Amino acid sequence: MPTYTPPLRDMQFVMHEMLNVVEELKMLPAHADIDADTINAVLEEGGKFCAEVIAPLNLSGDAEGCKLDKTTHEVTPPKGFKEAYKQYVEGGWPALSCDPAYGGQGLPVLVNQGMYEMMNSANQAWTMYPGLSHGAYEALHAHGTPEQKATYLTKLTSGEWTGTMCLTEPHCGTDLGLLRTKAEPQADGTYKITGAKIFISAGEHDLAENIVHLVLARLPDAPAGSKGISLFIVPKFLVNADGTLGARNGIFCAGLEHKMGIHANSTCQMVLENAIGTMVGEPNKGLAAMFVMMNAARLGVGNQSLGLTEVAYQNAVTYAKDRIQMRSLSGVKAPDKAADPIIVHPDVRKMLLTARAYAEGGRALSTYVALQLDKALSSDDEDERKECEAEVALLTPIIKAFLTDNGWIATSHCMQVYGGHGFIHEWGMEQFVRDARINMIYEGTNTIQSLDLLGRKVLGNNGATLKKFGKKIATFVEEEGTSEAMQEFINPLADLGDKVTKLTTEIGMKAFQNPDEVGAAAVDYLRVVGHLCFAYFFARAAKIALEKQGSGDPFYTAKLHTARFYFAKLLPETASLIRTARAGLQPLMAMDEALF
Amino acid sequence: MPTYTPPLRDMQFVMHEMLNVVEELKMLPAHADIDADTINAVLEEGGKFCAEVIAPLNLSGDAEGCKLDKTTHEVTPPKGFKEAYKQYVEGGWPALSCDPAYGGQGLPVLVNQGMYEMMNSANQAWTMYPGLSHGAYEALHAHGTPEQKATYLTKLTSGEWTGTMCLTEPHCGTDLGLLRTKAEPQADGTYKITGAKIFISAGEHDLAENIVHLVLARLPDAPAGSKGISLFIVPKFLVNADGTLGARNGIFCAGLEHKMGIHANSTCQMVLENAIGTMVGEPNKGLAAMFVMMNAARLGVGNQSLGLTEVAYQNAVTYAKDRIQMRSLSGVKAPDKAADPIIVHPDVRKMLLTARAYAEGGRALSTYVALQLDKALSSDDEDERKECEAEVALLTPIIKAFLTDNGWIATSHCMQVYGGHGFIHEWGMEQFVRDARINMIYEGTNTIQSLDLLGRKVLGNNGATLKKFGKKIATFVEEEGTSEAMQEFINPLADLGDKVTKLTTEIGMKAFQNPDEVGAAAVDYLRVVGHLCFAYFFARAAKIALEKQGSGDPFYTAKLHTARFYFAKLLPETASLIRTARAGLQPLMAMDEALF
Repeated sequence: MPTYTPPLRDMQFVMHEMLNVVEELKMLPAHADIDADTINAVLEEGGKFCAEVIAPLNLSGDAEGCKLDKTTHEVTPPKGFKEAYKQYVEGGWPALSCDPAYGGQGLPVLVNQGMYEMMNSANQAWTMYPGLSHGAYEALHAHGTPEQKATYLTKLTSGEWTGTMCLTEPHCGTDLGLLRTKAEPQADGTYKITGAKIFISAGEHDLAENIVHLVLARLPDAPAGSKGISLFIVPKFLVNADGTLGARNGIFCAGLEHKMGIHANSTCQMVLENAIGTMVGEPNKGLAAMFVMMNAARLGVGNQSLGLTEVAYQNAVTYAKDRIQMRSLSGVKAPDKAADPIIVHPDVRKMLLTARAYAEGGRALSTYVALQLDKALSSDDEDERKECEAEVALLTPIIKAFLTDNGWIATSHCMQVYGGHGFIHEWGMEQFVRDARINMIYEGTNTIQSLDLLGRKVLGNNGATLKKFGKKIATFVEEEGTSEAMQEFINPLADLGDKVTKLTTEIGMKAFQNPDEVGAAAVDYLRVVGHLCFAYFFARAAKIALEKQGSGDPFYTAKLHTARFYFAKLLPETASLIRTARAGLQPLMAMDEALF
Repeated sequence: MPTYTPPLRDMQFVMHEMLNVVEELKMLPAHADIDADTINAVLEEGGKFCAEVIAPLNLSGDAEGCKLDKTTHEVTPPKGFKEAYKQYVEGGWPALSCDPAYGGQGLPVLVNQGMYEMMNSANQAWTMYPGLSHGAYEALHAHGTPEQKATYLTKLTSGEWTGTMCLTEPHCGTDLGLLRTKAEPQADGTYKITGAKIFISAGEHDLAENIVHLVLARLPDAPAGSKGISLFIVPKFLVNADGTLGARNGIFCAGLEHKMGIHANSTCQMVLENAIGTMVGEPNKGLAAMFVMMNAARLGVGNQSLGLTEVAYQNAVTYAKDRIQMRSLSGVKAPDKAADPIIVHPDVRKMLLTARAYAEGGRALSTYVALQLDKALSSDDEDERKECEAEVALLTPIIKAFLTDNGWIATSHCMQVYGGHGFIHEWGMEQFVRDARINMIYEGTNTIQSLDLLGRKVLGNNGATLKKFGKKIATFVEEEGTSEAMQEFINPLADLGDKVTKLTTEIGMKAFQNPDEVGAAAVDYLRVVGHLCFAYFFARAAKIALEKQGSGDPFYTAKLHTARFYFAKLLPETASLIRTARAGLQPLMAMDEALF
């Protein structure tokens, strides 16, 4: 069975040495009192919960899966999940970065982000039960009426209730404009909602006493398409005026999906039959309200793959040090053994270092974005809020798609390190791969992310936000340009920055002729920009590591080697990506549909 | 549930239009009477068996898996498997390319290869029951005594019995030199064999009345390491002198593995307790005899992923034409529908075309290698036999690793086309991905393949075999160099050929200093050479397609577009691979083991 050790040292490095988060957070009124010790202590304690309580349930949960009682429509998650959730609630973990006005602890988003990375490493399927609540919390916090907030936010904050996002229907996922679920207004101001939803993660379970479904549906007079969608709260149990639970609402789990991975999470087909709901936000503007959840969820999905990359790496390293097989091509390395440990083989190291670099790069980028999110939420300077918001919007699709594609590559590499044993369930490695696969799909496929990045976030404002982010990189390049030791990092970083600028302009020009050029280049483009981000953060990490080389702390040596590996063996992927992005639309569209 | 249509037209194109296999085969005494109609008819008939009999069992077989009765040690494969196998045997399919001296039909290997591609598309897990027999057949055919041949070959040819390869033990897979299973010589010339084997595909089942295990074990006085391993036949039931079945032998299935994929194949832990066996070939030379099986098996594994790539492509195309979602960025394409079919989106096409190009490239390369194998087996010119053998040896690791890595990429892309539905078992796409994953591991991991290619097959003879193959490419480049229409294919092909030559020399020089440089570059190198092969065959295909453009047959238009796509969007991967290969060993080995 896999083991897990929270990567606290690297988290601290990223937060305190690279991003100086405490200084930045202290500028925000809501976090004026924050200090490094608090952050570290919370993450250390949270790490224990992850490693000791939920990690041991990951393999068994996958094997057992969820059970649906077709008569009562009740879903039972795997053994131990309910007890672990109870501990999670008792520990106050759901409240970490929630608003103190509703019982939250008011810690920065970035602390919650660190906690979730560890939860995802330990048990992605379990983490999705509380994980969806946070999105519901944020949508209600931003768009709910005072009554709705009073009724639901405290319970979501405490974790007594969990939340879901009910968007997808059998015929529509990406294209929510097609959705058909109906909401009929009632005399009392509520709505009766009827329809069928699919792929509802944590849609039904017995971990919490109530489930707060956020449901997209159409009013009778709604315009067609995405401008006719409204958002509703549909609780599993209706809530009485005094906050106690009332009657069972007409929203039921009609079936559980049989999936490639995340077996232990209940992915539900939900049927709504005159389910009573109240509207969130304005009529026909539900999609905008839902996007508050979506954006949080997209960062969350990137974080899932970051977690999987880290835990897969840790276990593959242990195996590679332990497993002996063949001798090193350059001579015997372990003469006392019948063969050398496989970590002596260069390609085994390459697979391990790929996962390591993707974990460290992902952690740096995610933490950076979480910090910008904290500023966007809590700064008292409106300009800063807007600027940070824009940067988060720019980087969100990169975190979602780049980190999940990397997670797929990394978990597959780590599984490969195990040879045949990697394919066997008991070792746990193949589960990481299967679990990682959904992250490239849900909350907007990675193709959709790439269109969001290139079409909306970059070309949509003529590259203004990208330029601002690029300026940060250029400033760093400028500052370190005279450092001899930094040349190996600065030169390729600066070079890639130039190439991104050129590529962006080139695609922009082409898209002017034919908007489909965006679709042809977007996926490659997103990976190129993802690498630009990673190269930037690895260069910043290398700078610190070089400065601290004399400290005797091997952490810095490892960081430097990992950065060098990244520049030598992973960044060069951009050479191909730029070529294929530039190859454009024609090779994709030339063939008539009938010839496929 | 996925559907499957045998790709007969493309098979015929590769065989008859591109490789002129009939002319080449007719030169071989064993195949003097072959004609295209026979080949086509066999494959058409075989395709029906695959599409109608075994394809419908693929999804259900995966869901059901195999059952082991721990008391009787008997394994029951999923419903329908036994009946399908009966039909397979009755159809004479096991005998296709077997020696007529033992009841075989004596058809060329390349016909069998085509049949197996289709079987793998239809049901990889089922196909592994008869699939392993062929390796056992070949090892015995090459190394068996006349008695052993008489006893076993007819039964393997008819399919009444199946075969296995019992190599791996819990502590050794790649490094067979470590194996511990013991063989004690008996007075009657047999051996009593005791030990534990794992990962034995089709190790126990009820499809055939007997199972012929080929087992690696050590004699009591054997030298340590790989030079002390002998090969034995250990039948499940002992065989009486008259060919009837005798007592149950001491070889039992002690457990079934729970795996990521190929659930319907029984992957057995086999225990041998004084199992009676006879030796195949000479004492302590078992590994060499086993390699006959291994090489066949490696080609077979590449073929598994070719099959999966094709079937995943076919289904993803159907889905992409059927599923409507969003409008094309360049304007509405299906005004009569609520949204456009997703095949209008450039990235969906990119995913589909990637799978299509990998299937077509893989089919061309595999068929080419099968033809060389036929020549290696049946030419009456010893020089030709040796030359073809060397070429097959060169290309075998490329087929194994390049086709299986491509299969992983392609099946994952095809699954992605389905969005969330791709993750759901009922659609069948995620099964293709899970099944494809093992192909990168077994019969020598893809890292081992790359070391075999670069270390042994290329640098091992100073590039002589690679040069000979390169000469074929150079001749083609020369011949087509003056054709204006062919420039788009010839120029990048010639360029890549030059780069491979330079890269090979460079790595060879480095390896002279440090043999680990081979291990650092090998995986990237193999993919570069794989692309060189695909570029060569796509250029040849494009030449024919250009010539036949006037025929009005849309097949040639599609072939040309696919070739152009390949050159524009897939071949550029080599730009990165060459860079990372050249980045060498240092970034991999610099970090101390303790710092991982």
